[in-house]
Formats: sequence, structure tokens, C-alpha cells
Amino acid sequence: MADVAAAAGVHSSTVSRALNPDTRKMVVPELVDKVLAAAKDLGYRVDPIAKSLRTGKSRLIGVLIPDIANTLFAPILSGINDWLRNTGYSVIVAEVGNDVAKQLELADRLAAQRIDGLVLGTVSRSDPLVDFCIDNGIPAVLVNRAETSSRLSAVISDDMAGMQIAVEHLHQLGHRKIAHIAGPPEHSTGFLRRRGFDFAASSLELKDLPCEVASAYNRSEGASAMNRLLDRRPDITAVAAANDLLALGAYDALALRSLSCPDDISIVGHNDMPLMDIVHPPLTTIRIGHKEMGRQAAQLLQQAIEHNDQTCRNIVLPASLIVRKSTLPPGSRRG
Amino acid sequence: MADVAAAAGVHSSTVSRALNPDTRKMVVPELVDKVLAAAKDLGYRVDPIAKSLRTGKSRLIGVLIPDIANTLFAPILSGINDWLRNTGYSVIVAEVGNDVAKQLELADRLAAQRIDGLVLGTVSRSDPLVDFCIDNGIPAVLVNRAETSSRLSAVISDDMAGMQIAVEHLHQLGHRKIAHIAGPPEHSTGFLRRRGFDFAASSLELKDLPCEVASAYNRSEGASAMNRLLDRRPDITAVAAANDLLALGAYDALALRSLSCPDDISIVGHNDMPLMDIVHPPLTTIRIGHKEMGRQAAQLLQQAIEHNDQTCRNIVLPASLIVRKSTLPPGSRRG
Repeated sequence: MADVAAAAGVHSSTVSRALNPDTRKMVVPELVDKVLAAAKDLGYRVDPIAKSLRTGKSRLIGVLIPDIANTLFAPILSGINDWLRNTGYSVIVAEVGNDVAKQLELADRLAAQRIDGLVLGTVSRSDPLVDFCIDNGIPAVLVNRAETSSRLSAVISDDMAGMQIAVEHLHQLGHRKIAHIAGPPEHSTGFLRRRGFDFAASSLELKDLPCEVASAYNRSEGASAMNRLLDRRPDITAVAAANDLLALGAYDALALRSLSCPDDISIVGHNDMPLMDIVHPPLTTIRIGHKEMGRQAAQLLQQAIEHNDQTCRNIVLPASLIVRKSTLPPGSRRG
Repeated sequence: MADVAAAAGVHSSTVSRALNPDTRKMVVPELVDKVLAAAKDLGYRVDPIAKSLRTGKSRLIGVLIPDIANTLFAPILSGINDWLRNTGYSVIVAEVGNDVAKQLELADRLAAQRIDGLVLGTVSRSDPLVDFCIDNGIPAVLVNRAETSSRLSAVISDDMAGMQIAVEHLHQLGHRKIAHIAGPPEHSTGFLRRRGFDFAASSLELKDLPCEVASAYNRSEGASAMNRLLDRRPDITAVAAANDLLALGAYDALALRSLSCPDDISIVGHNDMPLMDIVHPPLTTIRIGHKEMGRQAAQLLQQAIEHNDQTCRNIVLPASLIVRKSTLPPGSRRG
């Protein structure tokens, strides 16, 4: 930088100001031109890591997700990228499972790299990672899952209402013996969707509806839960699952018992993740605007980073019913 | 660090050596204990970004993928994580599409953050990103797609052989009018699978087999290609697609014309990505060990980073046929 200053015939603080787009306006245009020309001649390049030591800015945003194979995160990420496309930020994603120690280790490593902010798609209803971000002053926004207490901004779907819509759809078709495959209760999605199920059951005056809890959002846990339901309550005619992968697991369990969806049992999923229109049978499910979710989260995070605006906002997106072929009135078995 | 040295009664270079696990052996154990105790008392913490300025190591590995919604990358990533789990590295993923400028910008940003190495899942057959890694001395390994010339180690599947197996399966069922939906020719997967198709056709003495090229690996491009095929060659009885998403797009095109797979047209996919067993009809496809691919790529990258071993290795994994319900002998239409 001293060389550039000498070549341009200015003080090195002028070089610093002229090279930084944020402070360039403070330097008269002729001097900016001189400095830029000299910097170019001398092959001077700002060392971004040395720069981030001074400015604390890397222009990198981290997104933590529990499971990259769960394709519901693809549209969330696409929404984040969409919003940040022309802002100069780049997005990196880390798959950190549901293990808190691993999540904290990775967050710490990213903080050490002076990441500008985090989108957390992993949080439990009371999450040490949120403490970590608050304690270390790392701007962060929750997406898809929220804490019970609102300590950071969150963009989620209306989990309770979504599940109520699912149960009401089954009820309207004539189902009364409706079961719930619940998600992990430590996550807001599992907790609130189960609450939505209970609330709908009580509103519709349906009693003794069985529920089995899946310990993770994947297909094999969905199959286990469905098997437990069928063993315990062979009289059920419909299932509302807390997410699409659990619903697909329920398909698997039915197929192994030579039972058919929807002829023997109707199934509703939740999320409308990619490919749910082409599975067999095409899955009736609750659609959530995941891309919009990502967009809004990125917008909140940018505000938090650039305007130091950590006002806690909860944005709740509506959920809507997508009727496909996995739900029919009870007793629809052909022949 | 000076404070720690004073408290422990040693020189600051001893503190530096004692705090660094790599150089700790050079200090007598009593002094190591003293330094660690003093560092703990004083709340001294190594600043990892300052440290990475000196050591050039961040213990972060970056993985560049074109499309996070393409679930074939989930098992690759899971394999990479598997291998690196107990090595102290963490993995971050960047979705960079197929736009070279965006890829280079992101690689530059990651390099600036002193990332230790890159796994590239994005490369075209002659890729500026490979030049970037070589020019900047960034250890890198290619995965899934390779360059035409071997400048960096790569772990890929046997794309030619895989497509030959697919065509032979259709031929054995009795199909003679077999079409190909090819992937983008700038990627090795698209190029080599098409070559495999041509080679199989010529070995089996099948002539005038039509081919349509999809400009990207997604469902809508698969549907367009299938529509072009059906318009041009309504006599075809089977299709070998260059990947599963293209095959699903072919399903979509058939459904819109009230044609059925496999009764009217048999379809083979490629990759056996997640959920291909539960789509309708369950997709006959070519299985590739994507998790193993990720594991091997991570292993090569670790060698490149830690032993400065940039020997170029090409690891080619075998492909195998998974027969499900999307293929039948020609003329199988019921009734």
C-alpha cells in the first residue's frame, strides 16, 4: 500500500480510502483515478482475509441445515440465493445433523472465518446455537424451525394451521379414525404440527385418535411409526404425517403388508417437497412457500448485518392444501 | 501471548510452540503444562483467522455443486462427511450453478478465507475452475464429472459402461427402436454416456437410433427432449435417459400425451438417486456408488492437503443395473 501511495503521490490513508468502495466518496475523483491506476500498475490486490481481520466482513453467509438429503431445504436455499444474488454476498451451506456439539463446532469455525451471518435451519425449541450467536454477536435468523421463546428473528410456516387443514380435509372425506405420525417433539415443526392435530381433533369432536412419534424426519422412521400404528390400531382409515418423508415411509409400511394407499388408508404429507407429484400415489400434502421462506430469511439477515438491526421479527407463512391421489373417502377399496 | 509468557515464566516462542499441537512435542512436558494453565487462567484463545494467516490452514473443505435440488449430490456429500468425520475437517457446500463466472467468484472468496481444499462437482470437460485451483495452489479433487484431460484427480463412475448396460437391458427385453435423451455435452457425464449409447448401438447393430440433447439435468428439460423425440420418431419403444431427472421429465411428457410407461414406452434412468424406488412407475436405472464416490474424493483431497500429494489419480467406480418397473418388452400394453 505504501508503494501505491508513493506511485500515486498521495498519503497511504488516501489509498486506503480510495480502494474501499464504501469510503471512496471521501476522496476527490482525480485522486481516486490516480490511486486505482497505480494499484493496477503495481498489481496491488487487497488481501481479503487480512481485510476481514480489519473490517470483520467476509461477505459470506452460512446456512446450517440438518440433512441435505431432505429436499425441502433445496427451495429454501434457492430463495436465500435469490435474495442475495445482487448484494455481493455468497452463500455456503453446512450439513450439521441434529447433534448440538457438531453444530456448535461448525458455527465456531465459521465465526472464526469471520462469516457475516448465519441462517439456522436446525434449531430445537430451546437451542444452544442461538445462545452462541447471541453471545458472539453473530447476526442470525431462524428458518423453518423456531424456538419457543423468540430470541432471534424467524421465518416459519403456520405449522398448527397447516396440520389442521390436513385433518379437516380427511374429515371432510368422511374419515373419523385418523392417526398422526408426529415429528420429533424437540423441533417446533414436530411440536406445533402435533398440537395442530390435537386441536383439530378436539374441534371436530374426534376422540381417541392415535399418535406415533418419529424420532427423525426420514423415510425409515416413518415406516416404523406406521407399523406401530397398524399393530396397535388396525381400525384407522387415514394418517396425517408431520412431513412428506414420514408419509413416504408410511407408503413403504403399507406396501409390505399388501395394503394400499388410498384404497385402504388415506395419507396426507406436509411440505410438498420436490417430486411429491410423481411418487406413487401422488401425495396429497400441505404446501409451504419454502422459496419465499428462504427469501424472507435472507432479507432479515441482510438487515441485521448491514443496519445492525437485530429487532426480533417472526414471519409466519401460510400453508395450503394440495390434493393429489393419496386421499379418498374411507372404504374406497375397489371391488 | 506476551501475558501468557510472563505468567508462565517462559519466552513467547515457547508459548507459541506449546499451544500448537503440531509443535508441542518440541517443548518439555512441564513447560507445556505451565503454559496451558497460564493460557487458561488468562482466558487466552488462539484467534483462528489470525492463525490461518500464519499457517494457511482453516480446516475447512469446500464442495462446489451445480444444483442442491439434484439429490444425487446428497449421498456424495454424505460420503465426504463420512470420511472426514474424525479428521478435524469440516465441510461447507456452495451451490454455484453452471455459470463459470459465479463459480470462479465463489472459489476466489473461499480461497480468500484460506479454505484448505475443494471438491469440485461442477466441472465441464475443460474447466477454468481447474486452472484457478492449479494456478492458486489450491488442493482440489473432481467428483462425478471429470475433465477430458486429467489435470486433477477425479472420482467418477464408469459412464460409458453404465449406459451400455442400460441399452443392453432394453435390447434383451426385445427393444430395437431405442432413443437416447442425452445430458449436456459440455459435462463428461453427458458426453460419455452418449458415447456409451452410440457404442452399444453399434455393437448391437442397431441403426438410426434417435437422440435428443437436454441442455440441463432437470425434469423440464427431460420433458422437452421427450416431446421432441415423440414428435420426430413416434415409432420408438424405449428410451435410455442420461440421468434420473431427465427420465422423470420423460414420464411427465408421456403422461401429458396419455401414453404409459412401461406399456407404451420403456424408460431407463441413470444414477439411482433417492426416491427412484417410489416414483410411478418405480424407475429402472443405473446405480452408481455415490456415497463411495464422496468417500474416495475426500480421501484423495486429504492426501493432497496433508502430504502435498497432487499425483493425479482417476478412480472409476462401477455402475450396475437396478431393474424396477419402468421397463418391459415392447408391445406390452395391456388389453
